[in-house]
Amino acid sequence: MVDSVFMAELSWPEYEAKVKAGATVFLPLGATEQHGPHMAMNVDVVLPTGVCERVAREVGGLVAPCVPYGCKSMPRSGGGEAFPGTTSLDAHTFSLVIRDIIRGLGRDGVRRIVLVIGHYENMWPSVEGLDLGLRELRRDGIVDMDVMRLEYWDFVKRETLDRLFPDGFPGTELEHASLLETSLMLLLRPELVEMDKVPSDGPAKFPTYDRWPTPKGFGPASGVLAVAHGSSAEKGQWLMDDHVSLISAAVRKEFNL
Amino acid sequence: MVDSVFMAELSWPEYEAKVKAGATVFLPLGATEQHGPHMAMNVDVVLPTGVCERVAREVGGLVAPCVPYGCKSMPRSGGGEAFPGTTSLDAHTFSLVIRDIIRGLGRDGVRRIVLVIGHYENMWPSVEGLDLGLRELRRDGIVDMDVMRLEYWDFVKRETLDRLFPDGFPGTELEHASLLETSLMLLLRPELVEMDKVPSDGPAKFPTYDRWPTPKGFGPASGVLAVAHGSSAEKGQWLMDDHVSLISAAVRKEFNL
Amino acid sequence: MVDSVFMAELSWPEYEAKVKAGATVFLPLGATEQHGPHMAMNVDVVLPTGVCERVAREVGGLVAPCVPYGCKSMPRSGGGEAFPGTTSLDAHTFSLVIRDIIRGLGRDGVRRIVLVIGHYENMWPSVEGLDLGLRELRRDGIVDMDVMRLEYWDFVKRETLDRLFPDGFPGTELEHASLLETSLMLLLRPELVEMDKVPSDGPAKFPTYDRWPTPKGFGPASGVLAVAHGSSAEKGQWLMDDHVSLISAAVRKEFNL
Amino acid sequence: MVDSVFMAELSWPEYEAKVKAGATVFLPLGATEQHGPHMAMNVDVVLPTGVCERVAREVGGLVAPCVPYGCKSMPRSGGGEAFPGTTSLDAHTFSLVIRDIIRGLGRDGVRRIVLVIGHYENMWPSVEGLDLGLRELRRDGIVDMDVMRLEYWDFVKRETLDRLFPDGFPGTELEHASLLETSLMLLLRPELVEMDKVPSDGPAKFPTYDRWPTPKGFGPASGVLAVAHGSSAEKGQWLMDDHVSLISAAVRKEFNL
Amino acid sequence: MVDSVFMAELSWPEYEAKVKAGATVFLPLGATEQHGPHMAMNVDVVLPTGVCERVAREVGGLVAPCVPYGCKSMPRSGGGEAFPGTTSLDAHTFSLVIRDIIRGLGRDGVRRIVLVIGHYENMWPSVEGLDLGLRELRRDGIVDMDVMRLEYWDFVKRETLDRLFPDGFPGTELEHASLLETSLMLLLRPELVEMDKVPSDGPAKFPTYDRWPTPKGFGPASGVLAVAHGSSAEKGQWLMDDHVSLISAAVRKEFNL
Amino acid sequence: MVDSVFMAELSWPEYEAKVKAGATVFLPLGATEQHGPHMAMNVDVVLPTGVCERVAREVGGLVAPCVPYGCKSMPRSGGGEAFPGTTSLDAHTFSLVIRDIIRGLGRDGVRRIVLVIGHYENMWPSVEGLDLGLRELRRDGIVDMDVMRLEYWDFVKRETLDRLFPDGFPGTELEHASLLETSLMLLLRPELVEMDKVPSDGPAKFPTYDRWPTPKGFGPASGVLAVAHGSSAEKGQWLMDDHVSLISAAVRKEFNL
Repeated sequence: MVDSVFMAELSWPEYEAKVKAGATVFLPLGATEQHGPHMAMNVDVVLPTGVCERVAREVGGLVAPCVPYGCKSMPRSGGGEAFPGTTSLDAHTFSLVIRDIIRGLGRDGVRRIVLVIGHYENMWPSVEGLDLGLRELRRDGIVDMDVMRLEYWDFVKRETLDRLFPDGFPGTELEHASLLETSLMLLLRPELVEMDKVPSDGPAKFPTYDRWPTPKGFGPASGVLAVAHGSSAEKGQWLMDDHVSLISAAVRKEFNL
Repeated sequence: MVDSVFMAELSWPEYEAKVKAGATVFLPLGATEQHGPHMAMNVDVVLPTGVCERVAREVGGLVAPCVPYGCKSMPRSGGGEAFPGTTSLDAHTFSLVIRDIIRGLGRDGVRRIVLVIGHYENMWPSVEGLDLGLRELRRDGIVDMDVMRLEYWDFVKRETLDRLFPDGFPGTELEHASLLETSLMLLLRPELVEMDKVPSDGPAKFPTYDRWPTPKGFGPASGVLAVAHGSSAEKGQWLMDDHVSLISAAVRKEFNL
Repeated sequence: MVDSVFMAELSWPEYEAKVKAGATVFLPLGATEQHGPHMAMNVDVVLPTGVCERVAREVGGLVAPCVPYGCKSMPRSGGGEAFPGTTSLDAHTFSLVIRDIIRGLGRDGVRRIVLVIGHYENMWPSVEGLDLGLRELRRDGIVDMDVMRLEYWDFVKRETLDRLFPDGFPGTELEHASLLETSLMLLLRPELVEMDKVPSDGPAKFPTYDRWPTPKGFGPASGVLAVAHGSSAEKGQWLMDDHVSLISAAVRKEFNL
Repeated sequence: MVDSVFMAELSWPEYEAKVKAGATVFLPLGATEQHGPHMAMNVDVVLPTGVCERVAREVGGLVAPCVPYGCKSMPRSGGGEAFPGTTSLDAHTFSLVIRDIIRGLGRDGVRRIVLVIGHYENMWPSVEGLDLGLRELRRDGIVDMDVMRLEYWDFVKRETLDRLFPDGFPGTELEHASLLETSLMLLLRPELVEMDKVPSDGPAKFPTYDRWPTPKGFGPASGVLAVAHGSSAEKGQWLMDDHVSLISAAVRKEFNL
Repeated sequence: MVDSVFMAELSWPEYEAKVKAGATVFLPLGATEQHGPHMAMNVDVVLPTGVCERVAREVGGLVAPCVPYGCKSMPRSGGGEAFPGTTSLDAHTFSLVIRDIIRGLGRDGVRRIVLVIGHYENMWPSVEGLDLGLRELRRDGIVDMDVMRLEYWDFVKRETLDRLFPDGFPGTELEHASLLETSLMLLLRPELVEMDKVPSDGPAKFPTYDRWPTPKGFGPASGVLAVAHGSSAEKGQWLMDDHVSLISAAVRKEFNL
Repeated sequence: MVDSVFMAELSWPEYEAKVKAGATVFLPLGATEQHGPHMAMNVDVVLPTGVCERVAREVGGLVAPCVPYGCKSMPRSGGGEAFPGTTSLDAHTFSLVIRDIIRGLGRDGVRRIVLVIGHYENMWPSVEGLDLGLRELRRDGIVDMDVMRLEYWDFVKRETLDRLFPDGFPGTELEHASLLETSLMLLLRPELVEMDKVPSDGPAKFPTYDRWPTPKGFGPASGVLAVAHGSSAEKGQWLMDDHVSLISAAVRKEFNL
């Protein structure tokens, strides 16, 4: 059988052996969400899965199946639920999914889990799901679970951001469907990117509040919140190198690997 | 961009155009579950997704991302939760996931959905999730949603089963990780099957009831409930041909395509 | 006081004594559901309660109050929710009811429970409810609960079915409001059956999938999915004899009674 | 078939006809709860069902199946959950059950429902369940549902209480398993009462607060909160006469019957 | 810093010290609810908080922040949800709030809690919330939590009621926005009472049942269920003296303070 | 009666009149959470309530009662749940509270609501609660609700931050219990601040990920994440002036006031 880092590509005895050997399990948390007219809607699945795959290889871990439906998109960070194709879960549903997966992994004997967020709006419900899952495990007598929870995009060197954004980094939230994500997609799934469709209606100028109902023109009609021009697979590689090395280092440090 | 039947491989404007044109959306409902020592644990993701992909091409539809975590496995149909790697959701969680996806698709304008079950234990919670989702859509004023819900394995000709099981078909439930699933995996993801690891501790002889806690030896220790010997990609192709042609025909008939 | 097998017909000290003596508790799970124009809607309450009563006498157990509202009816197995009088619970509600009863019995000291399903659609939510109840009991320190879960209609001898269906058994799902249930009702509550109202619009010819909304003519308008002609109390007795002897034997074996 | 006021003893066409004719549906809400050493634990099922049966005959209504598991018992009104045999639902579960039944009846076309409480602790969760059920019906377009909710024991004449309690009525809460309930059971199910086992450890002297955990001796060890001596079927008849006539009058007035 | 009995007015080290010293924590449970045209809608916050504050001083305890939104108001006890400004939680929501607060206090080391109800309809959901919270704490290994739950208005001497109601006490439920509450508000927050706006449309004459929808004229249009004329701060002081002395005595007795 | 901007300090007719006149309702969302050894634990209640009060006066609105228990605290933004006194709700509970309040206000006729977050971790569950509440209102036929949701601390001028942090602003998250919050408390409730207890163990140096269990020394033991030295009521006034003027301007603009 293939020697895969993907948990679901292993047979159960293979998985059992790796868990007994102490494998860290990475759980990518994605979404099905608009990412502009120039990219597929699976960006938040492809990217964290790609990062997890590489980090798992580095540190000798496994990657659990990515949760492909995320918590509902907000206009200021992902364009919002009104975009066709953005198909999301309620926060409570999402948290229960995380709770159940954590509980299942814990019962299998997994004792080190890293949640890797690939969709901004998954941040808080993943915190909640983790808390609920660990609470259940404790009540089932499993008290030694070690967990990290991170957004992969936070693991980038200052100098890389400076190279990527000579005019200044617009900030994580606005990067939706923009240069960072587009470059990483060009690296991992170039056939799902069409650079000639990159729009020019950004960057978004959001106020410091949310609005219901979302007013017309609250964000760019394209769904690209900042700017995707200038994206390239090469830049994607710079980012991926940072993500993998910095996350691997953090995981090794925290879990004494 | 690739011309994909996978919804998440489209950009949102491409998806929007297909939905406006009346595309049927297929939603495969999988699991991460032991499938014997000779196969990967993603069988219930790979198979319904593969079926959906082919049917969607036939009828001009789209495939939504497969839900990769299923409702909890039972000993008599999937080996049960005690197998390492079987990582499942509570029925309520699973139903809420389906509810939310149905609601999301309905709001996008999708009016024809086919739920394709790839994991036995997803049957009833998918019924519940559908009922909850349609209830919400009705209350949001969307009353014309047309849905089918099916187990792909039911779409097979009598003659094909006779060819596959000259000694008689043991029945759907016992087929877990057995000849049907193994043959389809050999067709779709042969690198995830190792025929030399096929066990011989089946077929299971289950009583007509469930037991808690699961008694020792309640089912085969391997997790293969019937027999996987004799599986082949060719047999997988026979099955796939039936699944695709029969499901396509049913969908065309029901949705007047 | 009457020496009753019905738990709720005992005083609490009588119940306490029987529980301390190790009584097995049978919990019938029924429904309020259409059963054709010739029978009352309490069939799924009367039948499993009648079976439980007799088995409890055989093995020295108790019968807890039957849950009289079941999980929502499906067209292919019970006619569906559109029939007037079919009054059902959401799957989550039903599971919580089971969870709470299991938890309550467990706290009383009961250590052997048999769930006896009398309504097809209760199968899976009863599994879920049990899992939730046992999970709570474990967390309350009660880890030695022994449970069986069964559909009473599965406990019938091949030869009895052959006697009942000389032309072949149509299968459990289609038997809704048909020969088996009608015969058992004629045995237990003949005043609730009117054989001259038995319809002839069956047997149903269902496709291998569910449909929403239910198409006109999807199943017989009468609600009798197969055929009820030829039902008799005598046949009901044959069935009851099988149910009682086979379930009693299974319970004795599993619980070492 | 029997001409029954019990909804579940009708066939669906009979039920449909009665609903179309405007039948009021009575829903008794019971419990499985200790009622002293001298009575069965189904008192809260038998009594409200018996009242509903008689009132339904008076006003031409139907009785839906009694919910036999109630909301958790409290020491000051029912002895509390620590009594063996008291088997209860969480308030949320109980409310969802009511919600679902109300919704189901409403969809059948029922437009007049009377909830008849037979267990003190069902009061508030029945209010909640009703509110949830009516909320759902409104959202399904059913806005003309008329509902009453009552405790049957409140429908008694002052003079009857004076006859029953020449020394003064101790109040509804303390009447648990005491003279009122015992007399009504002697009327309806005398075989489930053993007057020679009536205890003498009451009446309870409760403080004006609840306590967790319940202190030893907080209430009478027998579970009889007031006094059951002197109960008789004759007194039960006095009560039943009041209950039936007063409730019937109230229902007729409110629903213009 | 101020030496406050209000937990939230302490710094965390001050709070920690008091908890370690065994402080009893009082949790007032209020509402935002109409209280007639002559009073503010925070009566059910002001009154139990005022009582808790004084009792906490007496017995050396702390007062947790009052929950300012209560369980939904009923016409017969609070006027009902139709009054503008009455802003309430579902029973389940309210119970979860109590559950979470109890759990949080328990984890902090608090071992004595008194729930003080200031809003009639909070009674039962506070019981449920407590039960859920204590259940969780037990599963977290905290089994020695001591709790009281009370309605402050029950702690009044017979002679005080006689002084207040020379013509007879109308009963707790009807006292909504009436003499007792108005007098206590005149004591605690006189600027929120306007005696010249006291209405005269009471006392209410309610039947012994609830009705949905609430009929016109079911209760007084003013929202004052009994009579508020004659209220005074002096009478409020009589009540407050009783509440504080009787509750303090009960708490000391139960918790051995 | 006082002419109050606090909704709960009005009588229901006064409130009704203001709602009919189109009053915007401000809902502060607080917490009971450690804020260092030098401040009370009600900071997240006092501050957003104070801001809301002033903005409501500016724009002619009302302030609903502050929710005093927030969503669970995280180590990187509030110190975490391990601090004594931090008493929080699960995210689901918190969302349901918001849902219910929104629904209640909407039914009263309120059509403009501003959620003002005073506790970092309330951000996302307030989004969820709003979404759930608006969903319910839509289904109840109320489709014209206008809502803003904001963190008050985002409404500050660049120049004010520059004045406050001549060495650079450490960022919102780290400001927990630090200069901004301390200065505002010195302005609003100086008696709840003890400047001589301001600790010096910050600023926190957090990694870019969360950890479970929280490692020793993950954040400052004091709970002050940045630096509180140098706080003053004068600086609090600068901040308050910005908050009030900028939020008022935003509300006026969005709601056309």
